[in-house]
Amino acid sequence: MPPDPRFATTPDPPYWVVIFTSRRNGQDPEGYERMATAMADLAPRQPGYLGIESTRDAEGVGITLSYWASEQAIHDWKRVAAHQEAQRRGHSTWYADFVTRVAKVERAYTMATSARAGL
Amino acid sequence: MPPDPRFATTPDPPYWVVIFTSRRNGQDPEGYERMATAMADLAPRQPGYLGIESTRDAEGVGITLSYWASEQAIHDWKRVAAHQEAQRRGHSTWYADFVTRVAKVERAYTMATSARAGL
Repeated sequence: MPPDPRFATTPDPPYWVVIFTSRRNGQDPEGYERMATAMADLAPRQPGYLGIESTRDAEGVGITLSYWASEQAIHDWKRVAAHQEAQRRGHSTWYADFVTRVAKVERAYTMATSARAGL
Repeated sequence: MPPDPRFATTPDPPYWVVIFTSRRNGQDPEGYERMATAMADLAPRQPGYLGIESTRDAEGVGITLSYWASEQAIHDWKRVAAHQEAQRRGHSTWYADFVTRVAKVERAYTMATSARAGL
């Protein structure tokens, strides 16, 4: 089977993850989608980008995980001008609430490696 | 406003997170929902449990974040018998693919604290 395109292909740990939990307020769906597409195109061009996983349910609650090689890469991405504009509009227009967490991934198991390990 | 019940109320970092990215295969929806409810009832009774955030989209791709006070708490929860049965059935029956990552949360920002910080 080819890899699932919704899953990120990350290296062996350690690496870093930005965990973004949010609830959309339903406002400006077209502007939001346009920005989401622009950021999905831009992020992979940043140094240290490793991949992204994202999902949102019918209630508007979403979780986006972006994976990075270092804290510095996260720091630099946060300060890219187009991304700062996305953050501003997220705050002012698109989200009812959000939390951002920065974490260091220490261990990872796939479905295949769990099988080999007998869970 | 009351806190959004879909968001976890976590303490100041550091703390730990288990990041579970998965794709459901559509099999056994009733058994899956029953187990998901049972695990959502059981996890908060474990020592070191801090909270959970979870979402799944119409394509069946979901992300679940469970927050824990320590690595030991994650280790112990992984070995709870009813949870081990859930892991086995997830592997054999419910998921097309999954990845589990264990990470240490180093920093966190809410919508409110981002506003105060001027992002």
